[in-house]
Amino acid sequence: MARKFIIDCDTAEDDITSFLLLLRYGAEVVGLTVVEGNISFHQEINNALWAVEFAGVDTPVFVGTERPLIKSFVTVEDVHGKGGIGQERLAPSKAKPSPKHAVDAMIELSERYAGELEVMAISPLTNLAMAILKDKRLVERLKAIYIMGGTIYGRGNITPVAEYNFWVDPDAAKVVLNSGAKLIMLPWEVAVSNAIDESTWARIQSMNTRMARYYVESYKHYREFATKRQGMRGHPHPDVLTTAVAIDRSVATDVRRERVDVENCDCLTRGATVIDYSSPGHVRGYFMGEVKQIGERWKWFTV
Amino acid sequence: MARKFIIDCDTAEDDITSFLLLLRYGAEVVGLTVVEGNISFHQEINNALWAVEFAGVDTPVFVGTERPLIKSFVTVEDVHGKGGIGQERLAPSKAKPSPKHAVDAMIELSERYAGELEVMAISPLTNLAMAILKDKRLVERLKAIYIMGGTIYGRGNITPVAEYNFWVDPDAAKVVLNSGAKLIMLPWEVAVSNAIDESTWARIQSMNTRMARYYVESYKHYREFATKRQGMRGHPHPDVLTTAVAIDRSVATDVRRERVDVENCDCLTRGATVIDYSSPGHVRGYFMGEVKQIGERWKWFTV
Amino acid sequence: MARKFIIDCDTAEDDITSFLLLLRYGAEVVGLTVVEGNISFHQEINNALWAVEFAGVDTPVFVGTERPLIKSFVTVEDVHGKGGIGQERLAPSKAKPSPKHAVDAMIELSERYAGELEVMAISPLTNLAMAILKDKRLVERLKAIYIMGGTIYGRGNITPVAEYNFWVDPDAAKVVLNSGAKLIMLPWEVAVSNAIDESTWARIQSMNTRMARYYVESYKHYREFATKRQGMRGHPHPDVLTTAVAIDRSVATDVRRERVDVENCDCLTRGATVIDYSSPGHVRGYFMGEVKQIGERWKWFTV
Amino acid sequence: MARKFIIDCDTAEDDITSFLLLLRYGAEVVGLTVVEGNISFHQEINNALWAVEFAGVDTPVFVGTERPLIKSFVTVEDVHGKGGIGQERLAPSKAKPSPKHAVDAMIELSERYAGELEVMAISPLTNLAMAILKDKRLVERLKAIYIMGGTIYGRGNITPVAEYNFWVDPDAAKVVLNSGAKLIMLPWEVAVSNAIDESTWARIQSMNTRMARYYVESYKHYREFATKRQGMRGHPHPDVLTTAVAIDRSVATDVRRERVDVENCDCLTRGATVIDYSSPGHVRGYFMGEVKQIGERWKWFTV
Repeated sequence: MARKFIIDCDTAEDDITSFLLLLRYGAEVVGLTVVEGNISFHQEINNALWAVEFAGVDTPVFVGTERPLIKSFVTVEDVHGKGGIGQERLAPSKAKPSPKHAVDAMIELSERYAGELEVMAISPLTNLAMAILKDKRLVERLKAIYIMGGTIYGRGNITPVAEYNFWVDPDAAKVVLNSGAKLIMLPWEVAVSNAIDESTWARIQSMNTRMARYYVESYKHYREFATKRQGMRGHPHPDVLTTAVAIDRSVATDVRRERVDVENCDCLTRGATVIDYSSPGHVRGYFMGEVKQIGERWKWFTV
Repeated sequence: MARKFIIDCDTAEDDITSFLLLLRYGAEVVGLTVVEGNISFHQEINNALWAVEFAGVDTPVFVGTERPLIKSFVTVEDVHGKGGIGQERLAPSKAKPSPKHAVDAMIELSERYAGELEVMAISPLTNLAMAILKDKRLVERLKAIYIMGGTIYGRGNITPVAEYNFWVDPDAAKVVLNSGAKLIMLPWEVAVSNAIDESTWARIQSMNTRMARYYVESYKHYREFATKRQGMRGHPHPDVLTTAVAIDRSVATDVRRERVDVENCDCLTRGATVIDYSSPGHVRGYFMGEVKQIGERWKWFTV
Repeated sequence: MARKFIIDCDTAEDDITSFLLLLRYGAEVVGLTVVEGNISFHQEINNALWAVEFAGVDTPVFVGTERPLIKSFVTVEDVHGKGGIGQERLAPSKAKPSPKHAVDAMIELSERYAGELEVMAISPLTNLAMAILKDKRLVERLKAIYIMGGTIYGRGNITPVAEYNFWVDPDAAKVVLNSGAKLIMLPWEVAVSNAIDESTWARIQSMNTRMARYYVESYKHYREFATKRQGMRGHPHPDVLTTAVAIDRSVATDVRRERVDVENCDCLTRGATVIDYSSPGHVRGYFMGEVKQIGERWKWFTV
Repeated sequence: MARKFIIDCDTAEDDITSFLLLLRYGAEVVGLTVVEGNISFHQEINNALWAVEFAGVDTPVFVGTERPLIKSFVTVEDVHGKGGIGQERLAPSKAKPSPKHAVDAMIELSERYAGELEVMAISPLTNLAMAILKDKRLVERLKAIYIMGGTIYGRGNITPVAEYNFWVDPDAAKVVLNSGAKLIMLPWEVAVSNAIDESTWARIQSMNTRMARYYVESYKHYREFATKRQGMRGHPHPDVLTTAVAIDRSVATDVRRERVDVENCDCLTRGATVIDYSSPGHVRGYFMGEVKQIGERWKWFTV
């Protein structure tokens, strides 16, 4: 039977690819829930609806919170472009979001697929925190929460020490990380060390599949930002890597079981990840210390 | 036409009296929403159901959040007794809470009574913050939010500078205070300076109405705490005073229009009220600097 | 025998008057120690030297810290003028500051006048905190520390809740307030409620003494700021009032003995005063809740 | 000409060895300044005096601050033993500390050896911060400050993310790190990855020099703590490694030039190191990412 996923997304290029990838590997995506993050909230919703049409499925799109619980935040349109896939603004031809709130969708889907539902949380964690606050039994019904967020070695991307998703809503991240849910977390540095290099990028460009064209188009802006502005040797796939681990745990070559928390004060280290490697007991979470080169599996998202 | 109220309550003696008082003055209470606070959550729900039966009405009771958004908190059962009306544990004969979550009830009732609904927020503000986070248009549909919370002169009751309701969930209080809603706030010191004195207490005791008996029974524990442990000259009615102002604004003899905020850091001044008396512009809120002696209106809740 | 004082000053008009007042009442001022605060540090030193010449005494001026322990701060030259007595820049004809650091001067003078020395701390508390940190026995040798700082009712002057001296260096204030020293503190609101009114100001103006001329000249800028920009009914004398209490304790009509602390987080309530009225034990400090109208004693500083 | 050093020490075994090592390599240690930290302040002073006698030199010992600037702290006598070299309490036969305060000693020695003096700051940074606060020109006169403190990958030793020296007084660390001084910092993890392994320990034990006997005796307790309680493969030498880098910079095989700051809020991440790898400009500091195995140079401290 197909695995059931919700993707909680601040829909830029990497969120869309995660969605396509899950479908490609036979998962059923029972909902896309949209949350504040990368780009304008309106465009995030449009991108989610567009992705559903592009994929030719009928996944409902649920609109969630468009702000962190407490703190203010910034979008990162310089990174992903105004459209989230560069400057172009995607729009669905006719699809509309569901009238149901993302928080309620999470709760109801977790009841419908109790014990089965998995959440791909590749964005700020506000929706998920709200759902946990509203229904404290939610986490018992979830099979797992995959989180793209935080750091493993204190190297962030929005501040020197904070990764963007944790930084945007560190309060929500704290709620989720301390919820008792079964967590599998992929930190930012793991994505950095698995950036798509020159030859892989060229190989994908040279293909002529529909997916390869989508891929090259949608990541072009982000790739330029990553290589030119951030000096990386390629562009990372934080969301896709998290999805890859969900699809096939053996992708992760260094899996650790440690308590993870987050700094939620409004201070220099806002959003910093705190990995309590000193007291590993009573933990339901795991985080990835290393994964296999995603580049070797480029065919995943290009076939 | 009757005014429509939701009471958001952490149901101890003063919350119940506020409910009875609103009914006594002809308001329609369209829902009691229960939130973490004074006593055990379970007993708060029971007290709300009991109050509905005692009042002989069919107000639905909606269960809300049982914890602050982010921070940990403590109940104050030493103040109100395990039962919230002293040590006795009330229980309804047969009433049950609604299956609908308090947050959803707030949103739906605000739609049903758009422009009319008033919220009596006499508890920690978690439910209300959650509702605002879930539906950013909520505040536009509310006629007013009456808040019992905060201080006017920096004299708190749970810490030297923080009032209990703001202290329990300062993050929620920050969301509500900055929501743009029309707020009417009654600070703690105003309740202290309007404590029920010896002669009024005696007068109520000497009456023999059903309400007077309820009153004397349910406040006995709190009165003892306030007079013996806190050295007050009587016991205060923070919730009832807030309700009194809602019923009849002329009760308030010193009304100020100033921006109010709250300290939500996890520090010495957690929950401290910040009244920005220096820049009064762009404010939809009011707070009470002084009200008429509630004692003069003892008949309100004893007839 | 003459009482011995150090004045720790961020030398604007009110600091100078405090100095003149102490001399006028027969005290010996054994040192002026300069600390960051109201205006440029350089001008603060010049003003101190000028005041010594103006007074015709030989009080040494000791240069102290020119920044808070940890935090950044702002001067308030809009309040006092670039010169601290308005825009004019005073300069001494020939006096120079002592080569000894203010912190060492405090320690050495406390040894020379052990049990006798009183500190008039009418500025940010950095020098004093440094001296306490350097010599933990210092406070045992001091007779008393008079502090102009903090609030009694949470009404500040640099933020809605923080008084300037505490706000500039809340960390230093915390060190001093928790040092075990005998403290006598005059909060900001007491100064506000004792502002010099129109008729007193006119009376002083009409005098023709050297002191009255100094007074009118040096407060003109501050008075204009207080009445026009802050909407006060006159200009306050926070430093002078504190000095008045030191000279004659009976000036204080409401003296309270309570533990006082300060918020030193870098947050909304930075520098807020925390008066722990709930647990008065083990306190060596006092603060003034009210003083007699200083206006009645205008002759103090004009004769 | 001999290099001139001050060692700012919370004198446990590793501080003493750093002192002996500097002498062994021909440096002149012009002062030991004692600061709060590892063990009781009294014992720290005794250890410093004992070390001077043991080394047969006349280095003066200056007593400094025995508490952090603002925050409270804990000693770590479980790590080093009550005596700092295990449970034994060393005491000097007759030496006494200088009457001069460590802060003044730092300032005066920096004047005497302007441009030459180097500070070995292998303890909490309170003394150094106090000296910088007292004399803002101090840092211009220092040739370099070697700091043992902080982390490079967010792996601490007193909390999951904070290294002890930074954690004890993060406020002082912030002052020093932002002082503009030329800093060379050795983070905790570098010490962990250079712990003395079994064979090196055995080799030193088998020697019979006076230094080898001192070494084995004084580290026995710490070694047991590190291997049994912390599960390390040997015991680290954070202070000695920092000293090794000072003696011979080529020991450091990975030197980075980046701005370093510290979290000084009183929160989950108190004392966490913030390496601003994203904006390397305007930096006078360096930190070590890796050093050569100190084990290879065991002869350093055993000959």
